[in-house]
Amino acid sequence: MSEVSTELKKICGEESVFETDEVLENYSHDFTEDLSFKPDIVVKPSTAEQISEIMKLANETCYPVVVRGGGTGLSGGALAVKGGIIISMEKFNRILEIDAENFQATVEPGVITEVFQNECIKYGMHYPPDPASKGSCTLGGNLAECSGGPRAVKYGVTKDYVLGVECITPTGEIINTGAKVLKNVTGYNLTQLIIGSEGTLGIITKIYFRLIPYFKHRKVLLAAFNSIETALGVVSKIFHSGVTPSAIEFMEKSAILAAEKQLGKVFPNNFADAQLLIEVDGNNETMIDEELELIAEVLESNGVIEIIVAEDENKMNELWALRRCLGEAVKSISAYKEEDTVVPRAKMPELISGVKKISEKFGITTMCYGHAGDGNVHVNILKDKLDDYSWENTLDSAIREIFRLTVSLGGTISGEHGIGYTQKNYLPIALGSEEIKLMKEIKRVFDPNNILNPDKIFPDI
Amino acid sequence: MSEVSTELKKICGEESVFETDEVLENYSHDFTEDLSFKPDIVVKPSTAEQISEIMKLANETCYPVVVRGGGTGLSGGALAVKGGIIISMEKFNRILEIDAENFQATVEPGVITEVFQNECIKYGMHYPPDPASKGSCTLGGNLAECSGGPRAVKYGVTKDYVLGVECITPTGEIINTGAKVLKNVTGYNLTQLIIGSEGTLGIITKIYFRLIPYFKHRKVLLAAFNSIETALGVVSKIFHSGVTPSAIEFMEKSAILAAEKQLGKVFPNNFADAQLLIEVDGNNETMIDEELELIAEVLESNGVIEIIVAEDENKMNELWALRRCLGEAVKSISAYKEEDTVVPRAKMPELISGVKKISEKFGITTMCYGHAGDGNVHVNILKDKLDDYSWENTLDSAIREIFRLTVSLGGTISGEHGIGYTQKNYLPIALGSEEIKLMKEIKRVFDPNNILNPDKIFPDI
Repeated sequence: MSEVSTELKKICGEESVFETDEVLENYSHDFTEDLSFKPDIVVKPSTAEQISEIMKLANETCYPVVVRGGGTGLSGGALAVKGGIIISMEKFNRILEIDAENFQATVEPGVITEVFQNECIKYGMHYPPDPASKGSCTLGGNLAECSGGPRAVKYGVTKDYVLGVECITPTGEIINTGAKVLKNVTGYNLTQLIIGSEGTLGIITKIYFRLIPYFKHRKVLLAAFNSIETALGVVSKIFHSGVTPSAIEFMEKSAILAAEKQLGKVFPNNFADAQLLIEVDGNNETMIDEELELIAEVLESNGVIEIIVAEDENKMNELWALRRCLGEAVKSISAYKEEDTVVPRAKMPELISGVKKISEKFGITTMCYGHAGDGNVHVNILKDKLDDYSWENTLDSAIREIFRLTVSLGGTISGEHGIGYTQKNYLPIALGSEEIKLMKEIKRVFDPNNILNPDKIFPDI
Repeated sequence: MSEVSTELKKICGEESVFETDEVLENYSHDFTEDLSFKPDIVVKPSTAEQISEIMKLANETCYPVVVRGGGTGLSGGALAVKGGIIISMEKFNRILEIDAENFQATVEPGVITEVFQNECIKYGMHYPPDPASKGSCTLGGNLAECSGGPRAVKYGVTKDYVLGVECITPTGEIINTGAKVLKNVTGYNLTQLIIGSEGTLGIITKIYFRLIPYFKHRKVLLAAFNSIETALGVVSKIFHSGVTPSAIEFMEKSAILAAEKQLGKVFPNNFADAQLLIEVDGNNETMIDEELELIAEVLESNGVIEIIVAEDENKMNELWALRRCLGEAVKSISAYKEEDTVVPRAKMPELISGVKKISEKFGITTMCYGHAGDGNVHVNILKDKLDDYSWENTLDSAIREIFRLTVSLGGTISGEHGIGYTQKNYLPIALGSEEIKLMKEIKRVFDPNNILNPDKIFPDI
């Protein structure tokens, strides 16, 4: 241990290595429930070469290493569950190049997502992936978890904007994947293998992004329904109007009430059992109005109670603020577990009906919201008034039933939060043993000594 | 050999195994130059289970296997360069499900791309990837090479529409990757690892696609320029008008003249040194006209000689027919080699200037055209009047110089045709030894005995 510490100080300088209880405590948790695992050392390197040296050291000594971005993960991906070194990427916080001519950018992984988005807008360009934690999460973490967010329905997720990465392998090699191009079939797609691998295959030190033109206008409507199933049932019908909204967000009543409490504000039509927040964007305001009109027609033929259009920036921001605080709001109620189910869009009513039946069976409370445009429903399971014994003994069975239902509908167990530490034992519900075996062997190719983010993704047995 | 044949007949039935010279000859070449390699046997299985049995047999006997779709590949991916078995996927030709509610489809890999596109249109849905050979190539082949085509600039390439696959590994396991969902971070992205792996990691037997709403209108304009550099220089400027065209195709004069000869038709403004075919699509005709107007303004401030707008379907189809026949047209002139360079858009003028200088230096003729919106330029090197000795002795050096230039501009050596057999020795120009080593180890994970499409992608030494 103290030898490792000495070596790390040689590599990164004394000022970049931390071993005090206070720092270790700070880096012992992310946004995943109330989990806490203390690392032995926290190190904050500032170059790819330093990370390469750290990994060579760790690989030789078989010492576990976990990479950490903004620490906003929801599946425990950044937790040092086996102790060891946490590499915090906070010094990798530079936007290295905004190439407006080619609609591209080269960025370090520690840059905050929203900072990057705002910088792109200055050049008339758009980086769409938009996770709820965009104000504090980092781009490297977004790549690790292949983050999504509300705009994925129109613009895709993180993986759709990455052209390539510079990455340090667990054995300390510096590799470059992809190229600064929009099409590429030059060997296997290592870029897409690393994205979504939750920090288990390599440490990203540079990201090459593609960007798109920034839209000029957007408008938001809020649609109230008197049943969850009616609200979710309308989603797949919207697309047949020919319109692809830039967001279709679903919130059930109890989640909205929690958000109101959290922000001390009131949602319009908060009596409704469920609401959809629908956003349309584009370059032509008349066209956006036409598209909203088309959507309103679909809503009206499919059981909407009331539609409110937020035309000005302030009203839109207010609605989005309520939507964006849902995660925090739900968490403030009681102990909870958040599941990140995703199914084909039209299967959402069946999913939620099933979730509510399972909740009833196990005596648990569920609060659902999410990115309905993608079929991505966050199912929050609340401990609420349940006693500790029942909570500990029923939770796992309830989650298994929810996931089995999700998979039986053609879906899977994580849309954007990842498997990480908390979901790993559910992986066999979604994947066959042969697929898991291949993934484990790929892990071994990159990380023969299993030192990089060990005990993540793959089930214990 | 005869034992293998007997076993194959047991697995697939006598009527599905072919050993006559005529059949072997038919399956000895694809669209790659004049290359020809005779397989020992051609087999046409009709189920995933049969393919699984074939692979188990091949794996036990270490007998090479090559999968073949439409046979339209341009880098020799479907050539049986080591003999052995060719598995032709022609019996996997069913569209299994069009799920209009979810904008998804489940398809067998032997379906012709255009057949699938047309079927989707019937349901108001769009499958955008649109390779030049769409009338004869298959979807499985498109996945293997991650095919692009002209619409990639707006809609992306094949990989952007695949949610998952059923796939037979080289050891005969039937695996399923992905799920029927738009977001998925549930273990490593095996789907994207298999796409673009050129038939070396597994045999795709089922494809789960996502689809998008079909656009209602499109319009095409043809813009003439008196220099190649001026034509290519304008491309990156178009995007700053806020418009993303559905195609920006570049053709140099000599390629256009070849197309005219091939079809016996005449291109407007065929005196110009270079032309851009620009297409805009969408749901609102007024908006399309506005977008064309914006593009025309950009063209006019940047040296266009003349713009012709093709407003009706017939005129548009005529222009597209000329564009689409370029590949065939160039090939009819003389022996040739086609390179599939791709660079950041704004680097295209520099790329082509460099290519022309290299051509001059080596005394070769190059004819360039391609998907300028993506920075994807097909450089056709013609033997033309060059004697055999010079052709054989200068070609390799010329290609190396072109590829080194491409990579120095941030680009890579294949955008959509793949590395396959003909480009494999150039791979080290684009990728470092560590990246290639990782890819080879991944290959070994899937294919420990190196029996599936051996001698492809990776360099000989």
